[in-house]
Amino acid sequence: MSYNILNELKPLFYPRSIAVAGVSAKDEKPGNRFIKVLRTYGYTGKIFIVHPTASEIDGINAYPSLEAIPEKVDLVNINTPAQHVPQIIADCVDKGIPAAEIFTSGFREVGKEGNKLEQAVKEAAQGKIRIVGPNCFGVYCPAGGLTLLPGPNYPKESGNVGVISQSGGWVTDFIWGADAYHVKFSKVISYGNGIDLNEVSLLEYLSEDTDTKIISAYLEGINDGKRFLEIARCLQGKKPLIIWKGGLSSTGKRAVNSHTGSIAGEQSTWNAFFKQTGAVQVNSFEELLDTTAIFTYLQPGSYRNLALIGGGGGVGVAAGDICEKFNLNIPPSTTDILRKIRTLLPPQGTSIRNPFDMGSPHLSAAILKQVIEILLEWENIDLIVVNRLFFYGNEQLMGEKIVEEDRRADAIIRMKKKAQKPLVAVLEELASGPDMIGLEMDRRKVRTAFLNEGIFTTASLFRLVRALSNFCTYWEKASLPRER
Amino acid sequence: MSYNILNELKPLFYPRSIAVAGVSAKDEKPGNRFIKVLRTYGYTGKIFIVHPTASEIDGINAYPSLEAIPEKVDLVNINTPAQHVPQIIADCVDKGIPAAEIFTSGFREVGKEGNKLEQAVKEAAQGKIRIVGPNCFGVYCPAGGLTLLPGPNYPKESGNVGVISQSGGWVTDFIWGADAYHVKFSKVISYGNGIDLNEVSLLEYLSEDTDTKIISAYLEGINDGKRFLEIARCLQGKKPLIIWKGGLSSTGKRAVNSHTGSIAGEQSTWNAFFKQTGAVQVNSFEELLDTTAIFTYLQPGSYRNLALIGGGGGVGVAAGDICEKFNLNIPPSTTDILRKIRTLLPPQGTSIRNPFDMGSPHLSAAILKQVIEILLEWENIDLIVVNRLFFYGNEQLMGEKIVEEDRRADAIIRMKKKAQKPLVAVLEELASGPDMIGLEMDRRKVRTAFLNEGIFTTASLFRLVRALSNFCTYWEKASLPRER
Repeated sequence: MSYNILNELKPLFYPRSIAVAGVSAKDEKPGNRFIKVLRTYGYTGKIFIVHPTASEIDGINAYPSLEAIPEKVDLVNINTPAQHVPQIIADCVDKGIPAAEIFTSGFREVGKEGNKLEQAVKEAAQGKIRIVGPNCFGVYCPAGGLTLLPGPNYPKESGNVGVISQSGGWVTDFIWGADAYHVKFSKVISYGNGIDLNEVSLLEYLSEDTDTKIISAYLEGINDGKRFLEIARCLQGKKPLIIWKGGLSSTGKRAVNSHTGSIAGEQSTWNAFFKQTGAVQVNSFEELLDTTAIFTYLQPGSYRNLALIGGGGGVGVAAGDICEKFNLNIPPSTTDILRKIRTLLPPQGTSIRNPFDMGSPHLSAAILKQVIEILLEWENIDLIVVNRLFFYGNEQLMGEKIVEEDRRADAIIRMKKKAQKPLVAVLEELASGPDMIGLEMDRRKVRTAFLNEGIFTTASLFRLVRALSNFCTYWEKASLPRER
Repeated sequence: MSYNILNELKPLFYPRSIAVAGVSAKDEKPGNRFIKVLRTYGYTGKIFIVHPTASEIDGINAYPSLEAIPEKVDLVNINTPAQHVPQIIADCVDKGIPAAEIFTSGFREVGKEGNKLEQAVKEAAQGKIRIVGPNCFGVYCPAGGLTLLPGPNYPKESGNVGVISQSGGWVTDFIWGADAYHVKFSKVISYGNGIDLNEVSLLEYLSEDTDTKIISAYLEGINDGKRFLEIARCLQGKKPLIIWKGGLSSTGKRAVNSHTGSIAGEQSTWNAFFKQTGAVQVNSFEELLDTTAIFTYLQPGSYRNLALIGGGGGVGVAAGDICEKFNLNIPPSTTDILRKIRTLLPPQGTSIRNPFDMGSPHLSAAILKQVIEILLEWENIDLIVVNRLFFYGNEQLMGEKIVEEDRRADAIIRMKKKAQKPLVAVLEELASGPDMIGLEMDRRKVRTAFLNEGIFTTASLFRLVRALSNFCTYWEKASLPRER
């Protein structure tokens, strides 16, 4: 089985040649756009165009039919009007083309007529070609040189996250959102109506794919719940599986039906699924993103005991409230910790009971370094959070440049290099007027420096804590005997 | 009563002269910093310094004591070490100074010794001077020329939001965060340990203050629960009161105690409070910010029936799920609406059942305008949301500049001017690498244009919907007969 699916889908993810149908000789149609982004992205295989009359468009050879293409074609990308799709798929089968992406929409999601067309596509395929779509953005696979609409600028580096999504919009956003975490991908597949390849076969593929270590999914409906459950159970404790299930509300269900013509399913079924598989359930795009990212930064394990540094008193109160909500602990400082840290910080305007409110926004980097050093040796602590030390001290907010801020960033990075336990950071964007863009630029630079050193960095403590709790729950369940 | 408190606190909010204690002749101490930000911000009253030996610091006259100052002083700002504070307060009383801000910390929040000092301050005051603090950032009142630490760059324009907060850190962040909504303030008070002026007296002040139309609060503890409840009940339906109560978890309670030495109170007490007063309960800084902001944009009323435009199919599904969670409705399109909009949009790749998925990211401004026009006439709809039409089409993401995007923004602004019902927008930041800063700049510019036209604009649909639901609940309760 594993041998089959990896080989079978090779032409889809690593095509040596692509034929594009639905290209215009004069306008910019989706087919033209697809070729353009493919070339800009740097696809190195051959590209052919299928066009009734043209012999060449934008320097690419065009042929009146797939059959007329004088070479082997691995993948056909289809952007024609929906009514032509069944014939093109039939032609693919005749030529022995192993894979197709159908970008075109107007199938079962638009009602009865569309549903008929969708059936005609399936019949034309005869199970002899693997199809992604219709009504989808297709495949992003940096190692295969493939990219998605709408843009040519997706990262070219590969990573270890595989994504399956019924929505094309969400995956394009996901790739960009992941960039803020330096998270890169093995394969991302937007499969739309999923008439052939769907969440089941694609999950199976990603579970076998050695380049994929973490799997994230946005799902609207499930075709074969039993098989999906089976694959998900096998993944438990091996490859983290993170699922955002859309359309569990009644309004959401209606939207699922207009979007991909899927049946959204019931909350209770999904609760049972998550219980049986240990897969991580998330409830929003943002949570999917943050949770996926944290899996790429931390070593497997549970990190529920936190020390928080920085921020201020009110921030510490909020941190306590949030952490408790997500079953994370902020253990009170031991007398030993109190004694050691009290030698570094004055009692006024600080709190060293954990969270550690460092008091001054002008905190020296040297003191910060020593505090982190002490906390790294605190046995009961699993993970250290540097929370919002960078909001203050900015040139635009303070009216002057505080160089200590850069020294503090360096101190954190130096400590991270020595640390035997994870050190993570929160860097918030707060001043957000157009005239404060410099502050945001500074924040992005510090974040980049942190991420480059493996310091997981989020835009808020809430986002950090929610993702961390998901992470811990996953590994706690993975180490338990399985429920049958 | 109302006459008294407004007059009594006038020297605090509109001081004609300020004396600063705790200024160094050589270093940069908090007192020096306070004077610096006051001057940069543009305070036009007189400033004096209290210093044992210097006769002048940074061009400002210094005197050995308050008594030695040859003029009337309205407000004293105290930054000295904690042990000197009781004497300074006694001196204030002797000179008949009506108000003081005590920035200094190291009182009850640090334990027994601090508590003794705090009692000494109270005794020195003899109830003859109004005090903000200790352990606080004090007062921001643009009309009075007062600003807060840490920065001199807070907005100089006044607005109609009044804020009381035990935390100084949260209010400084709040002022900047509010800037992203163009929300401005009447008075913002960080009152720390609140030994004299506290949530009760300050709420009373803001309830009487005619410049304040909306009151937001971050609270850790309450001194006089009965009186606070009374004032809050009187406000119901007159001035919206939005409260973030920190420290309701057990970890949060401990942090409250280290922060301002307050007693955090119990969840059940607070539930009863919100039930009886109709005040809006929020659970995070972000929710406090968004909810406060929406009250400054929408006319009183309930807007639970939404039409959503833009986004994409998956976005529509998530919108349905989120709205239902917050008891907002997305009514399915009527046949009349379907008929009208179908003439404008192709059936493939779009959905017009509400949410309205406009399909192409290159949607023409002319069509968008017509769709909004149709929706504005749809009787069952209370509010229109333009959701993420601006993520696509950006130069950096698409590899080319799509001018239609600017035209779409113009179309939305034009429609807003005509609209008889509220039109709001979601503009998300997604691509957040340092090399994508141009995209963020574009977003901020569009947001500024929207906000200038009164189009409430948030960074995510979730934040919009949560704030909107709070807003609706407030006005629904306000129009109900009161519970006794």
